[in-house]
Amino acid sequence: MHRAVIIGGGFGGLYAARALKNDNVSITLVDRRNFHLFQPLLYQVATGALSPGEIASPLRVLLRKQKNAQVLLADAVDLDPTARSLILDKGEIPYDSLIVSTGAHHFYFGHEDSWEPVAPGLKSLEDATRIRHKILYAFEAAEREPDPDTRRRWLTFVIVGAGPTGVELAGALAEIANDSLRHDFRSIHPEESRILLLDTSPRVLTAFPESLSAAAERQLLRLGVRVKPSVRVTAIDADGVTYYTSTGSSERIEAHTVLWAAGVKPSPWGEILARRTEAKLDRTGRVIVNADLTIPGHPEIFVIGDLAYREQDGAPLPGIAPVAMQEGRYAASVIVNRLNGQTPKPFSYFDKGYLAVVGRNSGVGVIGGLKLHGFIAWFVWLFVHLMYLAQALNRVLVFLRWGYQYVTFYRGARLITGDDDPSGHQEKPR
Amino acid sequence: MHRAVIIGGGFGGLYAARALKNDNVSITLVDRRNFHLFQPLLYQVATGALSPGEIASPLRVLLRKQKNAQVLLADAVDLDPTARSLILDKGEIPYDSLIVSTGAHHFYFGHEDSWEPVAPGLKSLEDATRIRHKILYAFEAAEREPDPDTRRRWLTFVIVGAGPTGVELAGALAEIANDSLRHDFRSIHPEESRILLLDTSPRVLTAFPESLSAAAERQLLRLGVRVKPSVRVTAIDADGVTYYTSTGSSERIEAHTVLWAAGVKPSPWGEILARRTEAKLDRTGRVIVNADLTIPGHPEIFVIGDLAYREQDGAPLPGIAPVAMQEGRYAASVIVNRLNGQTPKPFSYFDKGYLAVVGRNSGVGVIGGLKLHGFIAWFVWLFVHLMYLAQALNRVLVFLRWGYQYVTFYRGARLITGDDDPSGHQEKPR
Repeated sequence: MHRAVIIGGGFGGLYAARALKNDNVSITLVDRRNFHLFQPLLYQVATGALSPGEIASPLRVLLRKQKNAQVLLADAVDLDPTARSLILDKGEIPYDSLIVSTGAHHFYFGHEDSWEPVAPGLKSLEDATRIRHKILYAFEAAEREPDPDTRRRWLTFVIVGAGPTGVELAGALAEIANDSLRHDFRSIHPEESRILLLDTSPRVLTAFPESLSAAAERQLLRLGVRVKPSVRVTAIDADGVTYYTSTGSSERIEAHTVLWAAGVKPSPWGEILARRTEAKLDRTGRVIVNADLTIPGHPEIFVIGDLAYREQDGAPLPGIAPVAMQEGRYAASVIVNRLNGQTPKPFSYFDKGYLAVVGRNSGVGVIGGLKLHGFIAWFVWLFVHLMYLAQALNRVLVFLRWGYQYVTFYRGARLITGDDDPSGHQEKPR
Repeated sequence: MHRAVIIGGGFGGLYAARALKNDNVSITLVDRRNFHLFQPLLYQVATGALSPGEIASPLRVLLRKQKNAQVLLADAVDLDPTARSLILDKGEIPYDSLIVSTGAHHFYFGHEDSWEPVAPGLKSLEDATRIRHKILYAFEAAEREPDPDTRRRWLTFVIVGAGPTGVELAGALAEIANDSLRHDFRSIHPEESRILLLDTSPRVLTAFPESLSAAAERQLLRLGVRVKPSVRVTAIDADGVTYYTSTGSSERIEAHTVLWAAGVKPSPWGEILARRTEAKLDRTGRVIVNADLTIPGHPEIFVIGDLAYREQDGAPLPGIAPVAMQEGRYAASVIVNRLNGQTPKPFSYFDKGYLAVVGRNSGVGVIGGLKLHGFIAWFVWLFVHLMYLAQALNRVLVFLRWGYQYVTFYRGARLITGDDDPSGHQEKPR
């Protein structure tokens, strides 16, 4: 039987495995984690609206009924393309087709060592609970801080990067400060928090049409978020952020909470492929793929999702879930076509649209070519995200939490758990 | 206004704070965590049935409407009883009455350094997610293990301590192995797992009547749990447990997963009180309290919950939630009585009963003097625990999860999160 091995249980890998459900193919899905993570809702865990379990589904459960699929919790560390063998941290597995779908993680433009400890990014569940810890802890520290300057620093939140993640985080943070925590403190007024959103671009959501960027910016302003466009961050430490403004002057914001939503870098599998095969990487490290999503000289190796670089209509495909899903399904179809002696058509992304939510009752997006903003965009966003959640139970739980939160402003998952952040931040009150 | 300071937001502290709701008392509740934890359901988080957020409620939310109460996230480190001042990690707070309700944590009888890293106990949410990690990881490691001996070691689970926590953990583990994971693996059969429950006593649930211990043991046997009574553990390491049997011979079980449910030790506040006041401790370190739950020479200092030692009808009060709740309410009433110039009656615990659940559809317990076992005990347990959950939203969510799990055997919170256990266990496949 044809052996298809998939690395990564994100949208790309999972949809590829599922697409092979009825085919005479033996599938092995390798992941370091035992669950599929619904990344588009990760910021809701980071802001206490949802619990980790509500946006994560065990891969074994998702593939339980698919008898031709096996899940392996393992770390794929290298490749022998001649022997067609995937090397794991322990042992190796032979493959006839390999689908590499290992995604991307955050990138600090060379400042990993100094910036990552103080300005966490948002890619994993651990990142999300770490950010939740930071945000909630800041209010607690402010509540018991007598010094007004230090208190102000605890109540200042800076988000670097105004793409969808940054905008959604900023909107949720504003909701926390303005509504969720409003009546919970005795010494501070959470609604006096300052939330700043920084970006190098002159506008937020650069991937969206200009009119929608402007709409999102208005929505952010209404929530009290200060947008600082065209700035270049030069330093981040435990007490604040320093940046150059568009006029070239250096400014500083004093803040104990800085969140990173600016850069992503493809997974190390790009470099493994470049080393072991003829695969070429783009400037940022993504693997440049053929029209059938395979790499040059290796029609049996597919690269999909955020790790792949492919242009369509003169622009690179964006690193978003729908692209990964369609690429996963396409790679599966190529494998099946070939087994049947057919020649597959080149991959073509069908753009259904994209959305970003900005706090409560508002959002922006393009659906089927139609520009939406305000309440309708928010509503469509809710609907689409609920619909795509992998499990029925999670759909019900998330629906309940959202409904309850909509009526009461209450965020149910407001726990400060885990050890204190080992960062430069003063997670313990001094 | 009379200043009441409460250390600890568990059942004792929370119920004390709430009981003072309508009184002319200013309350400060100090806790290191920002939430109240519903400990009786902690084993359900450890076994993937519930998410952490579903059994934890932010203290600020629970006390939001109580305008005379303030919550402080801080570590209470010492006491100046003469100045009536509670010393925090940063700053101090003066009090007129102090309620110490800091509970207990696990105790390894002097083997903390060697046993705790390999055999986690179950007292905090972090403990629960760590145990969940261990249990779920064991099945994953077994799935990819070719060597039958090592595989068997991954599929052997030992629980030390057959009190309610140990029995409930064993029952849930059996359910996981027999039902929840049954169809999820391709190489192993989770239902072939061995689950062993060890205790020094000759029977499980020693605090229960003998007939109920026997019923619980029968229920455990039916689930496939092997009960080993009258044994004394002498060594625990990453590969197994060594113990003396009742006949004096030394035996060993090879197992990669050992869980600790045997001993608890009162919080360090017992020693702080003993050092700073005349308070006496019992053999295990609990504070021996007066009939009004205060300590000798300090009618303004109350000790309640698991930290307090008090006998009633010739037996010490057990370290369970109902005792702590009633003690919390009582301490509050003493404060109010005194403010009104009244003399309070001595504390008397009203025993409504106690319950333990053993897997699915069965349990044992005493309610209002009536012995229950089997389905009815299980059903009453479900009802009582739902009823006592602090928040309506959590009640709905837990009810939903339980209902769904009852029908589908599905455990929704099956995530292996967090970094690998820094213990002696091989959490990473070798």
